[in-house]
Amino acid sequence: MAVGLTDLPVLHPIAGIHLGTATSGMGYVGRDDLAVISCDPGTVATAVFTRNRFVAAPVEVARDHLGQASPQALLINAGNANAGTGAEGVQAATACCEALAGLLGCDSQEVLPFSTGVIGEPLAVDRLTQALPECVKNLNVSGWQAAAMAMMTTDTLAKGCSRQFDVDGIKISVTGIVKGAGMIQPNMATMLAFIATDAPVSPTLLDALLQEGVAQSFNRITVDGDMSTNDACVLLATGQAGIEPISEVGGAAYEDLKNAIEGVLRDLAQAVVRDAEGATKFITVSVEGAEDESESVVIAYTIANSPLVKTACFASDPNWGRILAAVGRAPVAELDIHAVAIYLDDVRVVSQGCLDPDYREQDGQAVMDKPEFEIRVVVGTGPAAVKVWTCDLSHDYIKINAEYRS
Amino acid sequence: MAVGLTDLPVLHPIAGIHLGTATSGMGYVGRDDLAVISCDPGTVATAVFTRNRFVAAPVEVARDHLGQASPQALLINAGNANAGTGAEGVQAATACCEALAGLLGCDSQEVLPFSTGVIGEPLAVDRLTQALPECVKNLNVSGWQAAAMAMMTTDTLAKGCSRQFDVDGIKISVTGIVKGAGMIQPNMATMLAFIATDAPVSPTLLDALLQEGVAQSFNRITVDGDMSTNDACVLLATGQAGIEPISEVGGAAYEDLKNAIEGVLRDLAQAVVRDAEGATKFITVSVEGAEDESESVVIAYTIANSPLVKTACFASDPNWGRILAAVGRAPVAELDIHAVAIYLDDVRVVSQGCLDPDYREQDGQAVMDKPEFEIRVVVGTGPAAVKVWTCDLSHDYIKINAEYRS
Repeated sequence: MAVGLTDLPVLHPIAGIHLGTATSGMGYVGRDDLAVISCDPGTVATAVFTRNRFVAAPVEVARDHLGQASPQALLINAGNANAGTGAEGVQAATACCEALAGLLGCDSQEVLPFSTGVIGEPLAVDRLTQALPECVKNLNVSGWQAAAMAMMTTDTLAKGCSRQFDVDGIKISVTGIVKGAGMIQPNMATMLAFIATDAPVSPTLLDALLQEGVAQSFNRITVDGDMSTNDACVLLATGQAGIEPISEVGGAAYEDLKNAIEGVLRDLAQAVVRDAEGATKFITVSVEGAEDESESVVIAYTIANSPLVKTACFASDPNWGRILAAVGRAPVAELDIHAVAIYLDDVRVVSQGCLDPDYREQDGQAVMDKPEFEIRVVVGTGPAAVKVWTCDLSHDYIKINAEYRS
Repeated sequence: MAVGLTDLPVLHPIAGIHLGTATSGMGYVGRDDLAVISCDPGTVATAVFTRNRFVAAPVEVARDHLGQASPQALLINAGNANAGTGAEGVQAATACCEALAGLLGCDSQEVLPFSTGVIGEPLAVDRLTQALPECVKNLNVSGWQAAAMAMMTTDTLAKGCSRQFDVDGIKISVTGIVKGAGMIQPNMATMLAFIATDAPVSPTLLDALLQEGVAQSFNRITVDGDMSTNDACVLLATGQAGIEPISEVGGAAYEDLKNAIEGVLRDLAQAVVRDAEGATKFITVSVEGAEDESESVVIAYTIANSPLVKTACFASDPNWGRILAAVGRAPVAELDIHAVAIYLDDVRVVSQGCLDPDYREQDGQAVMDKPEFEIRVVVGTGPAAVKVWTCDLSHDYIKINAEYRS
């Protein structure tokens, strides 16, 4: 029951990227659970990983491999996170990389592994590697949708998006896919995202684009405040579009690429929240008017993670007292409560720290009845403005997480 | 469905404390929702209040009054928190104090107001004051149970406890009552607690006893991580027991009193968690072996507030990966993941940061099947040891908070 998401939009192929999927029989019945994304030689790659101290084995291996070589392939499995599995988990991830490298004729350091699913169970290396030839056989430029489906866990639908722009009459594409759907709060969430472009981009610039883009997208969402052990977001640039290389900040091509990448990252991040476990509402929490961006983020997340605010959203209850209480307990150094105003979309509910005299309950109710709305908190007249995206806390979140082992 | 709580135990009267209740017709049908606790002259009082920046009007007034005079009465209403109500809320709380002061023949500064319930609705002063004469008429030393019942909101049962000890053959009593049950995490939770003793105690010492006791009891619990606007905990000492005044640290009488007060505070705090909204499990989260107590508290609360850990507890699922992931994302400066061990009661599940080779799933399952158990995390060999109490996250939490306006 994803909020405001339907079928996948057109996912434009990226020259130099091929995707293939298969069933390992390890995690799910009747669907693929394994994906390979291959990149032609010359592809530039960058990635960000979870900042959870307990990183999963594949994250360790992927980070290590990325430091040694340019990747020629990404290997993704759903159903088993290969996390909390110690040295054996690292061996298992490495063995999978070696198997795929053998099939593709590259070094195992040129393969990056990614896993999502249950923590703490050994990875069935044999099953996974037995399904790899099928993945490789299926590799094709139109495999984005199949790959998006193969990496789903508690996701209710495949998620991806694509943007295009022109440089000197040549069409440039940026395409990405993502999976959620719980244990989601930044510093990378249980969340795998793979984005590629055919633009030629220097490694330094590509890395900067990913870091800046993630800061305003995946690091601005929450489902449950829980940070996963496996999160990863990879950005690939194959360079196969026939335009001049983009290697420095500025210029029309750079700006267009930046906008396209940021747009894709934001859409993917929001898609994770829209398809969050049990979500029935998609809520933007804006905090404006602080002096300091980092304090604004703290206030926004205190609201966005409050179980009471989230259950009120589930109930379509304009229970502004819970929002006010969350603002009041946010661990920030400076907050003048007499300056605080709270809006539901454009309806001002609280002004100067108190119920606004002109507020009418039915106006707040009309906003909360919508599947998507904004909780906007103005805390002063400073320059900082931050948006965080969250969802409600519903019966289905409990049901899903009481029944599923993540 | 409180975990491990049944009917109230015997609540020993405290000489010099009288309690009376009545129905204001404001909040609840068919039960009392108003309580007055009067204290004889000579009673020493101390209190701690919420640290939420948006404090409710009664908290503002009670803090102000307590700074001006020794209280002769406490006035408690359930169903309306008188929070987010601005200057009118303060006037309303003050008017209620004046009305009670008029009936008791004291100054209005000698009355402390306390409210719990819905945020943001105006307090019906007329209804409240009309019921006050009935409260005053009912004042009696055995009114503890009635008062505990009158202040309930989403609590499923009245909560209180009582301890006694002897000093030179004279029986000293400490009795307390408390209400929860959501918007609960420290710095005082939606939580009102009133404790009294007949021991003669100096104001400075009484204040120290409350501060130290609350730090290890009410400031070590969580239901949902939400900090209320109305929390208050009041400790009264009537001094009517015929023993030498206790005015300094040390000595048998001091130690006995300290133990009794700490025991009552801990029992009351745990009772709030046991009767938390939707709770089916009572969970102790212990973090041991850190160098620093404050970092241990952060780790313990990261586990205790994790929605994924809490839903796993609800499902009796020994899903240690979620505990591990919570430890790994705790915002502390130092954590050596290779030193981390995790126990469910005495069952070691994780050692040296990985699944313990001797762990058997059925052993973890047997612990998680119990209504009360301990999640114990050992992070090193340092001296700090902290306990935090929490509950599971169940369907009923959602149901209660989607339907109730707190």
